[in-house]
Amino acid sequence: MASPLFDRLALIGIGLIGSSLAQAVRVRGLAQEISISTRSASTLQRAEELRLGDHYSLDAAVAVEGADLVILCVPVGANEAVAKWIAPALQPGAILTDVGSTKGSVIAQVAPHVPDGVHLIPGHPIAGTEQSGPDAGFPTLFEDRWCILTPPEGADPAMVQKLSAFWRACGSDVDVMEAGHHDLVLAIVSHLPHLIAYNIVGTADDLETVTKSQVIKYSASGFRDFTRLAASDPTMWRDVCLNNKDAILEMLARFSEDLSALQRAIRWGDGDMLFDLFTRTRSIRRSIIEAGQETDAPDFGRTKPS
Amino acid sequence: MASPLFDRLALIGIGLIGSSLAQAVRVRGLAQEISISTRSASTLQRAEELRLGDHYSLDAAVAVEGADLVILCVPVGANEAVAKWIAPALQPGAILTDVGSTKGSVIAQVAPHVPDGVHLIPGHPIAGTEQSGPDAGFPTLFEDRWCILTPPEGADPAMVQKLSAFWRACGSDVDVMEAGHHDLVLAIVSHLPHLIAYNIVGTADDLETVTKSQVIKYSASGFRDFTRLAASDPTMWRDVCLNNKDAILEMLARFSEDLSALQRAIRWGDGDMLFDLFTRTRSIRRSIIEAGQETDAPDFGRTKPS
Repeated sequence: MASPLFDRLALIGIGLIGSSLAQAVRVRGLAQEISISTRSASTLQRAEELRLGDHYSLDAAVAVEGADLVILCVPVGANEAVAKWIAPALQPGAILTDVGSTKGSVIAQVAPHVPDGVHLIPGHPIAGTEQSGPDAGFPTLFEDRWCILTPPEGADPAMVQKLSAFWRACGSDVDVMEAGHHDLVLAIVSHLPHLIAYNIVGTADDLETVTKSQVIKYSASGFRDFTRLAASDPTMWRDVCLNNKDAILEMLARFSEDLSALQRAIRWGDGDMLFDLFTRTRSIRRSIIEAGQETDAPDFGRTKPS
Repeated sequence: MASPLFDRLALIGIGLIGSSLAQAVRVRGLAQEISISTRSASTLQRAEELRLGDHYSLDAAVAVEGADLVILCVPVGANEAVAKWIAPALQPGAILTDVGSTKGSVIAQVAPHVPDGVHLIPGHPIAGTEQSGPDAGFPTLFEDRWCILTPPEGADPAMVQKLSAFWRACGSDVDVMEAGHHDLVLAIVSHLPHLIAYNIVGTADDLETVTKSQVIKYSASGFRDFTRLAASDPTMWRDVCLNNKDAILEMLARFSEDLSALQRAIRWGDGDMLFDLFTRTRSIRRSIIEAGQETDAPDFGRTKPS
């Protein structure tokens, strides 16, 4: 293997994504050493027990000292405070990136604090599970997934290349796009699906005519699929909603319009409209499977619980 | 093994559910012989190639001759026409049941055609995948799933017991409830989730600001989960919508109300409301896993496509 891409990687935040990154970097030898910081002492201790890094500190500024790659792996609402904290300790020439699901907000909130000579290149690996915390991480999480980079205007192309090489070395494909467009795309492919899932689980939870035990017993008929997304980290998703408001509201409005039309077709017994919609939506799954982003096994290849 | 529960099982319709039933009955020896009918000659030929039964006929009335258990496995919109067709050929003492996802409609549309001495006991196995047709069936589909029976008033308890024993022998647990309540429960656990999934996939498909190829590439961030339900059989789901209209409209109204409240919280930046909802919904997945109705593997234990 060639010499590591980076001398010292600092991970600020060590949940599912941070932990998976630490393991991917270790397995693939992408950095000489890994330094980890998180604000919770117990999480930091767990990271140490899992041997995710080489250095551990509750002080994010200490963790980034000497790092040539700093990755913020915190909920997007925490990015600004972390940026302020670590700014004085960032090493000139370092790349500062993140993994958050909103990108316009990162540029708006983090860029003002980044010292001259540090390269801010926000990023977003399109990968995850519904689980959280350092124990949920695994080194293959990023394989065959996309990572989107959203360099601000004037970013150094060589540094964008270097960060792209890092993600490719983690097993990902890399796309580069403008932050605003990223936020629009993610609003439909990720943020709206999560909100809809949280919402329907909430609706079911509130019913007085159908008991919770009935919802649970018969959930294999469709409902349980939604509970996976609705089990995602609440802090992360609160922050996403607060930091991609305009794009999310736009997608919610379109979804609601379409749902009203569907509701009307059901009320008036318009079977042709229903059949047309239900047919059209079939092909997109086939395309996702062909693009290598989904299994073609029935029912996700779900294993039955024992 | 004891002697088979039934002498002759007639399956009318041989898609995912009919095919799975044929295989479960064969593997477990629940009937002496299996007679299969479906209206498509090519599907019937495929069923024969798969050796799903002992007798095959395009005439449903021929298929039910001498059967002591007749199971309608057609989209619920076809039940009435099939009932009219087979009524004169039904054997006195036979149990007539079905597997449809709406039960009030079956009683309303089928019961008037059932001759005296034939026992109509509608049923609904809460099991399936997004795939359709005889090739999609497999004999373990019903294991550890629930089957709901909705006997009309005055149904013979001994026949309800016998049909329950049949489903338990297929590996299922059996619940008995009133048809109207079944339809309300299924509206929230199955019909609404499918409609929401179809709707969001339709919304994404219609966007002009985000390309279809972007939706496909980045779908692992949430969207792809919905495409599974949205790939279900269009005829089946059109018929469900047309035959459980009132309960579905009630659940859609509640969902939309809740979604409006969520939308308002996002617009006004009410992080506490968001956090509370996103926290409350987590526990229901845990309950579903504990009830044995879902895997606890992250990401459904999804295998990555190769």
